Amino acid sequence: DYPKKNGEILSGQYGINLLLFGIALMLGVSYHGYSIKEKHLLSFITTVMLIQLLWMLWYVVRRDRQKNSVPEKDSHAGTRWLRGGLTILALLSLIMDAFRIAVYVGYKECLSPTLGVYPVVHVLHTVSQVYFLWFHIKDVIKTCQTFERFGVIHAVFTNLLLWCNGAMSESQHFLEAHKKRLASLGFINYTGGHDEPHCECAISSCSMFSKSLYYLYPFNIEYHIFVSAMLFVMWKNIGRIIEHQHKREKDGLRVTRLVLGPILGLVALAGTITILVIYIMQVEESLETHRMAISMFYCHGIVMLACMCIAGTLGLILYRLDNRPLDASKNPSRQLDTELLCGSSVGTWLMSWCSVIAAVATHSNPRYRWTILAYSLLLVLEKYIQNLFIIESLYRQQEAVVEAEDQDKEEEEEEEEGGGGGGGGGEGGPSGIFSVSSQVPSCRGIVNQAFTNQENVYVSLNSSRLRNGNVPLCSLNQELQEPPVVPVSQDRAGKPDRRQILRNIAIFLFLCNCSLWLLPAFGCRPQYDNGLEQETFGFTIWTMVLNFAMPLNLFYRMHCVASLFEVFQHV
Amino acid sequence: DYPKKNGEILSGQYGINLLLFGIALMLGVSYHGYSIKEKHLLSFITTVMLIQLLWMLWYVVRRDRQKNSVPEKDSHAGTRWLRGGLTILALLSLIMDAFRIAVYVGYKECLSPTLGVYPVVHVLHTVSQVYFLWFHIKDVIKTCQTFERFGVIHAVFTNLLLWCNGAMSESQHFLEAHKKRLASLGFINYTGGHDEPHCECAISSCSMFSKSLYYLYPFNIEYHIFVSAMLFVMWKNIGRIIEHQHKREKDGLRVTRLVLGPILGLVALAGTITILVIYIMQVEESLETHRMAISMFYCHGIVMLACMCIAGTLGLILYRLDNRPLDASKNPSRQLDTELLCGSSVGTWLMSWCSVIAAVATHSNPRYRWTILAYSLLLVLEKYIQNLFIIESLYRQQEAVVEAEDQDKEEEEEEEEGGGGGGGGGEGGPSGIFSVSSQVPSCRGIVNQAFTNQENVYVSLNSSRLRNGNVPLCSLNQELQEPPVVPVSQDRAGKPDRRQILRNIAIFLFLCNCSLWLLPAFGCRPQYDNGLEQETFGFTIWTMVLNFAMPLNLFYRMHCVASLFEVFQHV
Repeated sequence: DYPKKNGEILSGQYGINLLLFGIALMLGVSYHGYSIKEKHLLSFITTVMLIQLLWMLWYVVRRDRQKNSVPEKDSHAGTRWLRGGLTILALLSLIMDAFRIAVYVGYKECLSPTLGVYPVVHVLHTVSQVYFLWFHIKDVIKTCQTFERFGVIHAVFTNLLLWCNGAMSESQHFLEAHKKRLASLGFINYTGGHDEPHCECAISSCSMFSKSLYYLYPFNIEYHIFVSAMLFVMWKNIGRIIEHQHKREKDGLRVTRLVLGPILGLVALAGTITILVIYIMQVEESLETHRMAISMFYCHGIVMLACMCIAGTLGLILYRLDNRPLDASKNPSRQLDTELLCGSSVGTWLMSWCSVIAAVATHSNPRYRWTILAYSLLLVLEKYIQNLFIIESLYRQQEAVVEAEDQDKEEEEEEEEGGGGGGGGGEGGPSGIFSVSSQVPSCRGIVNQAFTNQENVYVSLNSSRLRNGNVPLCSLNQELQEPPVVPVSQDRAGKPDRRQILRNIAIFLFLCNCSLWLLPAFGCRPQYDNGLEQETFGFTIWTMVLNFAMPLNLFYRMHCVASLFEVFQHV
Repeated sequence: DYPKKNGEILSGQYGINLLLFGIALMLGVSYHGYSIKEKHLLSFITTVMLIQLLWMLWYVVRRDRQKNSVPEKDSHAGTRWLRGGLTILALLSLIMDAFRIAVYVGYKECLSPTLGVYPVVHVLHTVSQVYFLWFHIKDVIKTCQTFERFGVIHAVFTNLLLWCNGAMSESQHFLEAHKKRLASLGFINYTGGHDEPHCECAISSCSMFSKSLYYLYPFNIEYHIFVSAMLFVMWKNIGRIIEHQHKREKDGLRVTRLVLGPILGLVALAGTITILVIYIMQVEESLETHRMAISMFYCHGIVMLACMCIAGTLGLILYRLDNRPLDASKNPSRQLDTELLCGSSVGTWLMSWCSVIAAVATHSNPRYRWTILAYSLLLVLEKYIQNLFIIESLYRQQEAVVEAEDQDKEEEEEEEEGGGGGGGGGEGGPSGIFSVSSQVPSCRGIVNQAFTNQENVYVSLNSSRLRNGNVPLCSLNQELQEPPVVPVSQDRAGKPDRRQILRNIAIFLFLCNCSLWLLPAFGCRPQYDNGLEQETFGFTIWTMVLNFAMPLNLFYRMHCVASLFEVFQHV
């Protein structure tokens, strides 16, 4: 029996090396030397995908045979809406694969067969992976651990590899388009791309296919990184003992008073799409409209980011007013969310600080110098505040639970005031976990006093339960990790308002993040065009920074969108 | 009262941004443009160091005032020998600062005053930081948490910044030396460095000082990264509730039979130093000796790495033979060690995979092609095995504790066999945590049977303690995390031998890692010279990979040295 820790390290190291080998191949391809070609990279990725396919097949067959024993499930991993979203992204990926196959058929004569095999295998891989996500992502694996660990980690890193490959192709394609644009404006000499095939296309709509491909790239990229995050949670869950989980209160989304957030958010989204279209049209025209477009982008960004900062701060202030303890129970998928949020911010932060330095240090004085400075500083601040807001939202104990408790109390109080008959009517709320009334004797006077005289009732939950002595062991462990004193705030009048405001904030930030994802995903990247940072850092270093920061930024925005949706449901 | 989680995120994000701003400045400096100069970077770092100094002063003064309340200490953080090692590195850093000041005095006329202020502040910083490490690194901070969190994280990232700066200067200096060498061999044209001052030196031994500087760089770099890891553990400890810790058995190092490991290790070390000297002498001479030197380096590397792989595998096999449960108690400094070990391996792994690809894909056929392939694969394998070995060693329950238990049993058994008087004499071993005999009644027959008839005694520790009912709550939580069934292996005859072998392995790997640190730290980096990877990846990409991998590799080796020393003491 190999220990768990070793299995983790053994498989983790295998995964890292798989990814690094792939990255080394990508570096080789990006040099455009004569020894490493794209076909080598693609055949490696195809092999890796095939291995994942085999493993998934083995896993599913094995699970089906053991149908009588129901496997344990982690209810936090892969929520329904996340899987739904991924299915849509997977469909778009499939369309992309179809386009790829079409392009291959067109240029069949001068392309390596690998470029035809790759999209076919990718289709298979996508379809079976989506099946796997729907039916097995919540599984907590207990048997055959080391072998299954290797399988899961292989799947994680296969998806990461596909993400890296997508991000690299995308940024290379963008860079070439950018160079062509500069050449057309007369700034530089540019002779031909590396990735164009050297023969005529056999079918008619070839160029349409290869152009549309690049509009589908962003979806494919997001699909792979999200799947790899979900699989990583599955990997962390292997061999885990799931703690006693209290079921979450289902509570219908109340859409009333959900007005300001969506409206402002939709305005932001509409504005962004307008900006996107204008930018892409204007940036290729004369030098004057080029500069206009850049200024416009930054001004729009400043307004949006400022609004987002205000919304986030407001949310944090509301949380401070309502001091609720954090939920410290173990939850790998939330833990990962937190780390990914902070980790993927690093890219934008580095880019922003470079822009700040460039704006301050530049010797030339372009008109958008101070706009860039303000934009970059706001970008840093916005991510700082937004991360705090999201993480605090995810870690707070659920409003629903406490509210249910409050409602119980309310009913109880009304009963008391109206002189209702049964003395012990309201005690022992059906679903609240903080069972106040089981502690105090069911005597009118005491209950009344407890609810009217003090603002916060401090329920020393643990000690009372332990005193009772009938606590199951499995939940004891969990309870010991919780803070011992639980203040239950009781200002019922302010609660629904506050909750509505938080929901409005969440939906507003959700739409804003969608907008900020759209811009770079569809080619609006003035960081390449403004020239300010290139002057200070040089073309090579600045391109390197952007190639590092852009994919992370895209991932950050998408991840925020997913997290904010969860926040919206959670509040 | 601001929640702990928020304090963590708030301060963590601040630290990351501090570092990223510094890195952005470094990127600006490395471009050698006209807007960002070294003096800007150094004044930023100086400011950051001064802020850390102020914070440390505030902290120390505040602690001194509260002298009556003894702060809690984390006994795992910053062991005595680690602090001792760091003090030596700090002394070497001080010498380096002295050299820097001397160089500044020499070139005073044409250098910015910042270059004189920086080493002075660095001296102050080093001295006070070493004081802080000796007297406060183990503190578990409980009061004023958010403010002190910011202070500690500021210190962590200040040191990381100093590490980055050191690593960057070092690799830039190396690259320039390399270009000069290539120019002297007639390969390229090279005109002057960027970092040389433009005036005559006023004092006589100027060039001696500035040349010696670069031999001291490696120590300074290691100093800062180690300090930042130690401070990070302090940061993780803020607000932590230290669990009940069982004191470790002090056990004098037995030097008997500690022969083979040290001898082989010293042979490796001596061989390495010889190789280092020959390499540095030969690589600057003719093309023929240049190639000779490279071949020699790789052959030497293959032999060493193969021996290390064998030693590591042997260690792992020994661990498998003696199946002991892992120690799952919480220990942030061990957790960090594990993550750093795997994290810093990434650099070398990427480099190795690039070399593998280059060796396979190259069209030219240099004589050391297959040597490089073998070397790179062995490098990947060696880190893989070594990480497994070190992590398993750190996580295993201590041999000393179990051995003490064994000795108790031995004594007990002898007593029984010799017909000793007192019936309950040996029961309830004084220091063992697995108190077997308290479970069985103190009756001769049963005790004898339990020791003679079975190979492994399974002690269900937790259940028995819980049955007794008198367990303190704080330790209950810890015990629940431990595996419920503890097999205590009893082959007493084999144990000392196995332990000696493991010690020999640890000391051998320790010396080998020292050797492998020495080579790149003092300029023996054939990855720049062999030309194979440059052909496949191009100069820019390959230099980028090396600039990323080299500092991580140096850190990895030093970190391994520290970890293996701990393993040596632990076994």
